[in-house]
Amino acid sequence: MGGGPDLPTRAASKEKELVLCVLVWPEEQVEGPIKALKEAFKDVEVEYYHSKFENGKAEPVDVPEDTLRRATYLATHFWLPPSASAIPSTKLIQFFSAGTNHVSQHPIYTDSKIPLCSANGVHGPQIAEWVVMMDLVHSHSYTKLYDNQKKRVWDQKAGMNVSDRVGKRVGVLGYGSIGRQVAHVAKAMGMDVIAYTASPRKTPESKRDTGYIVPGTGDPDGSIPGAWYSGTNKEDVHEFLKQKIDLLVVSVPLTKETTHLLSTEEFSLLHKSNPRGTYVANIARGQIIDQKALITALEQAHISGAALDVTDPEPLPKDDPLWDAPNVLITPHCSGATDVYADRAFQVLLENIKREKSGGKLINEVNRKRGY
Amino acid sequence: MGGGPDLPTRAASKEKELVLCVLVWPEEQVEGPIKALKEAFKDVEVEYYHSKFENGKAEPVDVPEDTLRRATYLATHFWLPPSASAIPSTKLIQFFSAGTNHVSQHPIYTDSKIPLCSANGVHGPQIAEWVVMMDLVHSHSYTKLYDNQKKRVWDQKAGMNVSDRVGKRVGVLGYGSIGRQVAHVAKAMGMDVIAYTASPRKTPESKRDTGYIVPGTGDPDGSIPGAWYSGTNKEDVHEFLKQKIDLLVVSVPLTKETTHLLSTEEFSLLHKSNPRGTYVANIARGQIIDQKALITALEQAHISGAALDVTDPEPLPKDDPLWDAPNVLITPHCSGATDVYADRAFQVLLENIKREKSGGKLINEVNRKRGY
Repeated sequence: MGGGPDLPTRAASKEKELVLCVLVWPEEQVEGPIKALKEAFKDVEVEYYHSKFENGKAEPVDVPEDTLRRATYLATHFWLPPSASAIPSTKLIQFFSAGTNHVSQHPIYTDSKIPLCSANGVHGPQIAEWVVMMDLVHSHSYTKLYDNQKKRVWDQKAGMNVSDRVGKRVGVLGYGSIGRQVAHVAKAMGMDVIAYTASPRKTPESKRDTGYIVPGTGDPDGSIPGAWYSGTNKEDVHEFLKQKIDLLVVSVPLTKETTHLLSTEEFSLLHKSNPRGTYVANIARGQIIDQKALITALEQAHISGAALDVTDPEPLPKDDPLWDAPNVLITPHCSGATDVYADRAFQVLLENIKREKSGGKLINEVNRKRGY
Repeated sequence: MGGGPDLPTRAASKEKELVLCVLVWPEEQVEGPIKALKEAFKDVEVEYYHSKFENGKAEPVDVPEDTLRRATYLATHFWLPPSASAIPSTKLIQFFSAGTNHVSQHPIYTDSKIPLCSANGVHGPQIAEWVVMMDLVHSHSYTKLYDNQKKRVWDQKAGMNVSDRVGKRVGVLGYGSIGRQVAHVAKAMGMDVIAYTASPRKTPESKRDTGYIVPGTGDPDGSIPGAWYSGTNKEDVHEFLKQKIDLLVVSVPLTKETTHLLSTEEFSLLHKSNPRGTYVANIARGQIIDQKALITALEQAHISGAALDVTDPEPLPKDDPLWDAPNVLITPHCSGATDVYADRAFQVLLENIKREKSGGKLINEVNRKRGY
C-alpha cells in the first residue's frame, strides 16, 4: 500500500468481508439470523437480495457487479452469477438447499474450484416427521377415520385395523441426515432399523454423520442400524430389499445410478421378502422410482402402499393415474418445509464461515464428481 | 383325603388349575397365546368362552357353575359372574382392558378381595403412535394435503405451513404407560418433555414404571421428563398447565377428581402461557374434558386444536357441534387397537400367573380405593 498506514476505521472497513445473500425470503423475515451472523463475525458485512421463487419459477435477481466482486461468501438457494470470474473473492458458496443437482450443469459447478456446500441436514427433523406421520397414517388407517369425521360417522370398526410399529422393520435406503432421524424416531417406536449406503461403512469412523446435525436429532455415530448394507450394484440393492422391510424409506440423492433404482423387479423382491407388504416412502426425488412400475405394484398389492412427497414429473399432472392408485398418499414436495428452515440454514452458513476462516473442514462440502 | 394317595395321573389332573378365559375374540384367533400359556404352565388347563361385544353392547355369556367353581384364574374384558361366591377358587382376575372403572360398581369389585389386575401397558405403543400421528397431522397441515390429493390438486403452498417438533414442549398429564411412550418418541423427535402425576415422584424409585412395559418402549426409569409436576389440587394442575406446553397429552384415568379436569379456566391458562397455541390430545376418557368449554376454546382459538379419540358421550351423536368445531380431529375410541393386542394382554396374564404362583408382587394390581 505504501504512504503510511490507513486510518484505523478505514482499515477496519476495508477488511470487512462481504456475505452476499440471495435468498427466497423477504429480508425482514430473516432479520434474526442475519443479526446473529453479524454478531458472530465482527469483520463481516451482509448484503441481502430477495430472490423470488414461485410455482417452480425463479424471478431474475440483479446484483451489482461491484457487490459480486467483493463477495467473500455467497449464500443462495439456486441463483448464481454467470461464471466464477464474476465472483473473484468468493471463498465459499453456501447453498440453502439440501442438494445441488439443480446447478450441476452451471460453469461454477463444472469449471470452478470454489467450495460448494449444501444445507444438507436442516431437513432431517421435519422430513423424518413427514415419513413417520405417513407411515402411521397408513398403519392406523387414519384417512378412513378422517373421511368418517367429515360425514359425522362414528364407526369404531374402521379404526380397528391397526398394526402398530413395535418390532416392525424400517429399511433406510440412503442413510443420510433424514434417514438417520427416521431411524432415531423409529427406534423409539420399537422398530428395528437397517441401513443402506452406496459406500461400505464398516468402521465406527465411516459410520459417523459428518454433515450438519440438528442438535438432539439423528444418529451421529451411526449406531442405530442393526445391519448396514452397501454397494452400488443392482445385486447389492437387492440384497438389502430382501430383508423383510415393513417401511422402506427412499432417501438417496438423485444420480444417474439411482434413476429408476426401484422398478418392477425391486417391487417384486419386496413382495416376496415381506408378503405382509412393504410401505414405500419417497422423500428424495420422483425419478428414483419408476412410476409406471410403482402404479402396477400398487394395483397388484406387491407393496402395501406408498407415501410420495416427490413425483415424476412435478407438479404431477391432473390426469396422471398415480393420483388415485390404490393406497397411495401424495403431498406436493413440501416435506422439507418448516418455520425454522432459515434459522437452521443460517446456522450451517455461520459454522462454515467459521471453519473457512480457521482452515477447518467445511460442513456439507459437495463432492462435484460424486454429485452430492 | 385319606385312603392312601390317589393314582399319580388322577392326582396330576386334580391338581391342574383352571384358567377361565371370557374374551372378545373367537377362540381360534388366540390359539397362539393360549398354547404359549399351556406350555409355560404344565399344571394349568384353559377353558375359553367367546364374549361377543359389538357397538358398545355385550352379549350374555353362559359359563357353567362347575367351571366357575374350578376357575383359579379368570381372564376377562368385562364379563364377571354375579358375585365372588360363584368363583371360590379364584386367586386372580386379569382384566384385558387398561382400566377397570367399567366394573367398579360390581360386587366383586366392591365387596371381594380377589386381586384384580388390569392390562395397563399393552396400549402404550399404539396409543402413543396415535398421539404422535395426530400431533404431526396437525403441525404438518396434513388433512389439507389429503383433501387436495382427492381433488388431484398439487398446491405446494398448502404444505408450507409446518412447525416441526424440535424444541417444542410436550406436557404429559398422567405419566403412565401411554404418556411414557409418548415421551420416549417425542424426545427422539427433539421435543422437551414435562410430566404430571397426582402423587409426587421425587425419588428414582417412585419415578419407575412398575406396570407392564412392552419391551423397548416407554420410560421405565422415568428419566425422560425435564420437570415433573404433581398434586391433586386445582392449583397443582394449573401450575403444570402454565409451562408453555405445545402438546398436552391427556392420559389420566377417569375418576371423580379428573372429571372435567380441563375446562374454561384451564384452556384460558394454556392460552396465556403459550400464545402460539397448545394442541390437546385426549386418549383417556371424554369426561375428563368439559366438552362445551372445549368447543368454545377451539372457536376462540385459545388452543390450536384438539385430537380426540374419546368424547362425551360415545358414540358422539350425529348432531353434536363437536364434530366440526375448528381444528378438531375425532376418531371413534380406537387408538388402543392393534393386531398384537391379544398377544400382549396374554403376556400380562402369563406373567401374573407366574407371580401369583411364586408369591411375587402382581403386575398392574388395581387399587380398589384409588380406582385404578
